[in-house]
Amino acid sequence: MLWKHILEVRKQAPLVHNITNYVVMNNSANALLAIGASPIMAHAHSEVRDMVSICQSLVINIGTLDEYKTTSMKLAIETAIELEKPWILDPVGAGATPYRDQILAELLPYRPAVIRGNASEIMALAKTNTSPTKGVDSSNQSDEALEAARQLQQSFGSVVCISGETDIIVGAERTIRISNGHPLMTRVTGLGCSATAVIGAFIGVTEDKVEATAAATALFSIAGELAQQISTGPGSLQVNILDVLYNMTEQQFIDTLKIQN
Amino acid sequence: MLWKHILEVRKQAPLVHNITNYVVMNNSANALLAIGASPIMAHAHSEVRDMVSICQSLVINIGTLDEYKTTSMKLAIETAIELEKPWILDPVGAGATPYRDQILAELLPYRPAVIRGNASEIMALAKTNTSPTKGVDSSNQSDEALEAARQLQQSFGSVVCISGETDIIVGAERTIRISNGHPLMTRVTGLGCSATAVIGAFIGVTEDKVEATAAATALFSIAGELAQQISTGPGSLQVNILDVLYNMTEQQFIDTLKIQN
Amino acid sequence: MLWKHILEVRKQAPLVHNITNYVVMNNSANALLAIGASPIMAHAHSEVRDMVSICQSLVINIGTLDEYKTTSMKLAIETAIELEKPWILDPVGAGATPYRDQILAELLPYRPAVIRGNASEIMALAKTNTSPTKGVDSSNQSDEALEAARQLQQSFGSVVCISGETDIIVGAERTIRISNGHPLMTRVTGLGCSATAVIGAFIGVTEDKVEATAAATALFSIAGELAQQISTGPGSLQVNILDVLYNMTEQQFIDTLKIQN
Repeated sequence: MLWKHILEVRKQAPLVHNITNYVVMNNSANALLAIGASPIMAHAHSEVRDMVSICQSLVINIGTLDEYKTTSMKLAIETAIELEKPWILDPVGAGATPYRDQILAELLPYRPAVIRGNASEIMALAKTNTSPTKGVDSSNQSDEALEAARQLQQSFGSVVCISGETDIIVGAERTIRISNGHPLMTRVTGLGCSATAVIGAFIGVTEDKVEATAAATALFSIAGELAQQISTGPGSLQVNILDVLYNMTEQQFIDTLKIQN
Repeated sequence: MLWKHILEVRKQAPLVHNITNYVVMNNSANALLAIGASPIMAHAHSEVRDMVSICQSLVINIGTLDEYKTTSMKLAIETAIELEKPWILDPVGAGATPYRDQILAELLPYRPAVIRGNASEIMALAKTNTSPTKGVDSSNQSDEALEAARQLQQSFGSVVCISGETDIIVGAERTIRISNGHPLMTRVTGLGCSATAVIGAFIGVTEDKVEATAAATALFSIAGELAQQISTGPGSLQVNILDVLYNMTEQQFIDTLKIQN
Repeated sequence: MLWKHILEVRKQAPLVHNITNYVVMNNSANALLAIGASPIMAHAHSEVRDMVSICQSLVINIGTLDEYKTTSMKLAIETAIELEKPWILDPVGAGATPYRDQILAELLPYRPAVIRGNASEIMALAKTNTSPTKGVDSSNQSDEALEAARQLQQSFGSVVCISGETDIIVGAERTIRISNGHPLMTRVTGLGCSATAVIGAFIGVTEDKVEATAAATALFSIAGELAQQISTGPGSLQVNILDVLYNMTEQQFIDTLKIQN
């Protein structure tokens, strides 16, 4: 079911426009190339609209944000909406500073097709930007983030992907859990940002955004899990995950996938 | 013939100033270090002239361009010309947006010693910036790019390197073809940009810019070809190409080189 | 003696705020993650103060400096001082341009807890910013840098780490020499910058800044030395050093350490 979306990315080789943070640019571009997509990274106000117009989708990541890039993001998103191209938001560090929360509050009304973040980012995002459901009294962070994800989904119509030991993908009518990956992945900078970029490629070629997000998340987490088995630490994991993404076969994917619909 | 230029770079260890894109900065710096050169990366208007004055050559790459860096580039190029230091232009994404084409039209009159790009970039560059020869009716893209390269060569006096399965180096009186490399190199972000940086080092130590470009191109493509043989995907290729560049011997170089003058 | 500080970093997992250069961001973040710390990279004027307030320490690296980031640095440093959080200065390219020297002259009065640079950077820094001791007539560069380091230490109260074949750590009352590492490390871009980031983590958890700097320097240099033994060039060294940092055991550390108090 999910594998066909992976084949579709390889076949269509979507152009994916990224306005992302400086720390992960190289890795995100390489992750996109490894799955068969083509990355573009550009942020000049003078050209960002034109770049979006030649791409299939847009990735917005607020790490290493500044005032100039915030405007770049808005110009890009406005163009994406005009041209009906999907965009994904990675709210890196949501809740860490008032500035980040303010920018996120300005971006969310543009209704991203997908939002992807870890539990605390999703919770921070929902706290500031949705009317909290009464009586939320969850026993652990995962449940809390799930409730927050549902609020975001309802408020902005976005598919929300909560990353973690289990990745939870929350759509309007479906919730999918994927339990692949490995804890060592958290010791490599920006793998989450690369996962977001990869989802960006999938939503560029697939109408069903829940399935697109699930397929991309499964692909990336499985790649991390398999890459960890041949790695001796975070340095080699960062390298091997690209090789595994590039070489992934349907058999490997099916044999490793741990999914719960 | 070409090997002596590689030895010259190792001996002189030229300082190479780079104003390049954020995606490839780390890899380009590492490629320069691996061949025995020393990278400098700086773009502040307040210091860019001083930086150029202590370097042997200048690399200008318009990926992740913006208004500030465009000015940095012009200040750097003007200084390079005043001090008679060679500079190389990598017209990343030429033709993708009007802004890029406008900036390229502003930079070309500074007459780069070398221009290096893929076939579509070279063609876009020539289309906007030269008087097209009548009757161009080439049967395939390589030939078209070759004609475009010749127009650029004549208009701006630059050596033009068209990268691709076969790299074609076009000088005023000579055309050199190098058929090394491997398709997997296109699945690693910024290897072309690193190749441009490497040419930047070679033109800093060699008078004959055609030979300098050919030697650098051969070195980089051979390194990619040999590195691919010990790699399992694009992640390991990005790492191995640096090791191979660093360890390249004359014997390996001669045994692998596929050149046509 | 030094090992306990390494354990302390792993235990406390300090948040380290970095305003550093674009070339090394990915590697510095990964080095911090590999030793058990958590990197933050942010520079927007609108949030940099808030980011410093949630961190244990601050890393300032002037590579790829510009006017905007200079202001970011000052805002961050002022906040660090208000909140009594230690900061470390990496004076990349000190002496290369008047602009760099001017910015460094503006930053030094904020009295960094630690300054880390190579011999020529430390000497350039002292020449411009301290009253030179008369009669300095050293026979070699190391001795000259040592004198410069002492001047900086006395003028600004900073621990000064001179990197090189032997790293020399100069405090008010102690001088420590560490002779680990390997020359191949100079062929990988930004390993010095990553070492600075690692010291940044250690000063966030350890009161004794001389010991913190010595422990971090020893850890990083030993990691480079051990990683080189399993590397075939600078590409694999950049990867392996992260794996070795992540897996370092007390036994490896003690068996490899070459220290002179």
